[in-house]
Amino acid sequence: MSRKIRLGAFLPGGGQHVAAWRHPDAPSDGATNIGFHIRLAQTAEKGLFDAYFLADGLSVGFSGGREGGSAKAAGFEPVTLFAALSAHTSHLGFIATASTTYEEPYQLARKFASLDLISGGRAAWNVVTSTGDETAQNFNRDEQLPHAERYRRAREHVDVVRQLWDSWEDDAFIRDKATGEFFGRDRVHEIHYKGEFFQVKGPLNAPRPPQGHPVVVQAGASEDGRDLAAETAEVIFAAHQTLAKAQEFYRDIKARVAAKGRNPAEVLIMPGVAPFVGRTQEEAQAKYDRLTSLILPEEGLALLNGLAGGTLDLKGYPLDGPLPAQDTTEGNKSRQILIREIADRHGFTIRQLYQYVATARGHLTLIGTPETIVDTLQEWFENEAADGFNILPPWLPAGLDDFVQLIVPELQRRGLFREQYEGRTLRENLGLSRPVNPWTEARAQLAAE
Amino acid sequence: MSRKIRLGAFLPGGGQHVAAWRHPDAPSDGATNIGFHIRLAQTAEKGLFDAYFLADGLSVGFSGGREGGSAKAAGFEPVTLFAALSAHTSHLGFIATASTTYEEPYQLARKFASLDLISGGRAAWNVVTSTGDETAQNFNRDEQLPHAERYRRAREHVDVVRQLWDSWEDDAFIRDKATGEFFGRDRVHEIHYKGEFFQVKGPLNAPRPPQGHPVVVQAGASEDGRDLAAETAEVIFAAHQTLAKAQEFYRDIKARVAAKGRNPAEVLIMPGVAPFVGRTQEEAQAKYDRLTSLILPEEGLALLNGLAGGTLDLKGYPLDGPLPAQDTTEGNKSRQILIREIADRHGFTIRQLYQYVATARGHLTLIGTPETIVDTLQEWFENEAADGFNILPPWLPAGLDDFVQLIVPELQRRGLFREQYEGRTLRENLGLSRPVNPWTEARAQLAAE
Ligand SMILES: Cc1cc2nc3c(=O)[nH]c(=O)nc-3n(C[C@H](O)[C@H](O)[C@H](O)COP(=O)(O)O)c2cc1C
Ligand SMILES: Cc1cc2nc3c(=O)[nH]c(=O)nc-3n(C[C@H](O)[C@H](O)[C@H](O)COP(=O)(O)O)c2cc1C
Repeated sequence: MSRKIRLGAFLPGGGQHVAAWRHPDAPSDGATNIGFHIRLAQTAEKGLFDAYFLADGLSVGFSGGREGGSAKAAGFEPVTLFAALSAHTSHLGFIATASTTYEEPYQLARKFASLDLISGGRAAWNVVTSTGDETAQNFNRDEQLPHAERYRRAREHVDVVRQLWDSWEDDAFIRDKATGEFFGRDRVHEIHYKGEFFQVKGPLNAPRPPQGHPVVVQAGASEDGRDLAAETAEVIFAAHQTLAKAQEFYRDIKARVAAKGRNPAEVLIMPGVAPFVGRTQEEAQAKYDRLTSLILPEEGLALLNGLAGGTLDLKGYPLDGPLPAQDTTEGNKSRQILIREIADRHGFTIRQLYQYVATARGHLTLIGTPETIVDTLQEWFENEAADGFNILPPWLPAGLDDFVQLIVPELQRRGLFREQYEGRTLRENLGLSRPVNPWTEARAQLAAE
Repeated sequence: MSRKIRLGAFLPGGGQHVAAWRHPDAPSDGATNIGFHIRLAQTAEKGLFDAYFLADGLSVGFSGGREGGSAKAAGFEPVTLFAALSAHTSHLGFIATASTTYEEPYQLARKFASLDLISGGRAAWNVVTSTGDETAQNFNRDEQLPHAERYRRAREHVDVVRQLWDSWEDDAFIRDKATGEFFGRDRVHEIHYKGEFFQVKGPLNAPRPPQGHPVVVQAGASEDGRDLAAETAEVIFAAHQTLAKAQEFYRDIKARVAAKGRNPAEVLIMPGVAPFVGRTQEEAQAKYDRLTSLILPEEGLALLNGLAGGTLDLKGYPLDGPLPAQDTTEGNKSRQILIREIADRHGFTIRQLYQYVATARGHLTLIGTPETIVDTLQEWFENEAADGFNILPPWLPAGLDDFVQLIVPELQRRGLFREQYEGRTLRENLGLSRPVNPWTEARAQLAAE
């Protein structure tokens, strides 16, 4: 079987683009409308996407602008939303973001195990450390933990969660009505975890998930982030503007994965792509211009500041002048650097920068016909830049509908994408193997000796 | 409109009774089977139940027996499960248990707000403080917090959660595509909570729930528990064996509610009832005997010990002898006292006690025809012992099917129960008013002055 492109879909009900909700085709209440989310999930499944992906944060994140940019400020919690959406779909995976900094591993392991059980093996966890003092202030702190500490905690957290998922062996249940034996006590394990941050006895009060472990996803871009990804992630989400940068990242991560003794083929790198597709180049460009024209300037500035973790106050600077130099040592480092790179590369003014960034917040924007867009996807896929893509339709539902109707058939025509789902679980569709349970493995080894 | 009986249904997929899963009619994998839970929810809705209720704990709670009693040891997390079940139902409410001791108010407020939004206003939170060192050990502690501290924390927790639910006013969203105004910043509020246990800035990143607040449910039986219930709960779950005890509790709670300045009619007291119903008394008794015969003795002892919070080790005592005296100052107080009361009142041997308790863990067991069972429900309902009942079908699905087919029609015939749902939200069906938002109220008052 030839290697296929994997596809995730970012479908926040409020739309990806800062002005998405203002688009005449979009429902203005998409962010809080369950029916709209059901429609999106069903469309993604019709398009044979591997998974529905939701980013997430634990604070409102007021932008300081006119608040149009905060169409996503209030909405659903991803895991509960996905549990509901799983009832309306049968093959689509669900990648929910959850924080290692503000959630307890026991609760987190349990809710993802529950989602995996509810959906028949379609859950994935996007591991994030959560940035910003705003968020810390919702959780009994004045300011956030330092970057390095957040990552040490993340590493330990993922470790505890995985051990909890393994605490019941797959064959733990006997369920013998005659003898009254419900499960084999020797197949259920306390984990007695004691680390720098966590002390967890276990076992989890949920069976081993259908996938063994829900798929683990990660998106950190810093050194610590890359290391964590190489150690723990099976899917890596990234934001790149050029083939060269994407290749650098791809090769770096695959090398780190190999260095950790893991199989690089089992770590899928999926950069984000925001497509504007038209039957002609002009039609595509008109779609881009249409959406871009809907951004209020104050919203655009607020967006840049928000992306930079509140460290980029551009009020007072001329909109049609350049981005002023500022300190990049604090806040959301990787994102601020990304923003500055874009401005430098294109020689953008502030206005041009926010219009560009608003579209996909640092991800690759493609404006073209199905042919030209698939040309780029194929180039990245075949040249060590990507194993698949996370598609960020700029506005919804039309941006998703366009992708499914125009781009998916072109991908299939070139043999780059599935004609039907390979399996029922997300792992099966992504081609990732099911993790072995270490307790089961240890017993098998013992028996073999 | 005459006062109607409210009904909740306890439907753990593994069945209520310790031997439920061994019953020939029951699926042995009910606890982890999503399809089975969907069927239960749909049956409860057909029976016009107000809500599906799930108890919950945060540890496996090994019984030490043959583990048959732990058919519920591993299963779904209630909020994710209910999110999925809401997709398969349209009127049924969902009461999910969640802990004030081990969850952060921001996360808890958010997941219940999300469930309420997903289900169109059908969510309720059963507030528990969680007992036991086993649970504490899954959350970085060696032992649990003292009883009084758990309750102080619970009070503060509920307070924070309610403030977060109110942090967005109902009319906060403007969603004006023309002006780009998505919401009114003056209708969204930081709460700046600073208490003994929590410091939470807010606002919540979820809109005000459709019900204003999901319904708040409570079940503590101690002095602290009753006070918390009187202060915060809108539905109170309780376990009573006799009309007199139920009346004492009912009157005590209603008096406490009034003393707090709340309306006693807005606090519904719903004791638990485990019904064995047959077309004849003999048929009902045969159902009881059938299920009781399936309890393994070691399982029965483990159950008693488990109910008493691990403080009642009866191994070695003769099964057909009396319950030995032991210390009741530690552990799960209200439950251990309840167990001893039952033994004393009936003069039960250890075996008889576990057989009896296994059925409904301290709740009222009714064995009879639709007429005799409804006689008792009516007596309690009309004599200040209950505003409704939480039904604990001893085994599933038959125990629920029986209730819907045999008891519901008898309740309806007597005009004690609805013929159809009164509304779409749980509050509407329970006849509870929607909480006023204090920010909105304050503004209205200011405008009136
Ligand atoms: C492409 C991308 C997507 C991200 N998505 C989220 C998200 O949904 N929620 C979140 O809290 N953080 C998100 N992050 C932040 C990272 O998880 C991480 O906390 C942040 O980038 C700081 O770590 P770093 O310095 O390693 O990048 C994302 C980061 C990147 C690069
Ligand atoms: C009828 C009843 C049902 C309860 N259900 C739960 C439950 O599902 N989960 C839980 O953690 N505690 C449950 N509890 C425990 C209480 O929430 C409380 O923590 C415990 O009873 C100790 O407090 P108390 O001394 O006030 O009763 C229940 C208690 C009673 C009386």
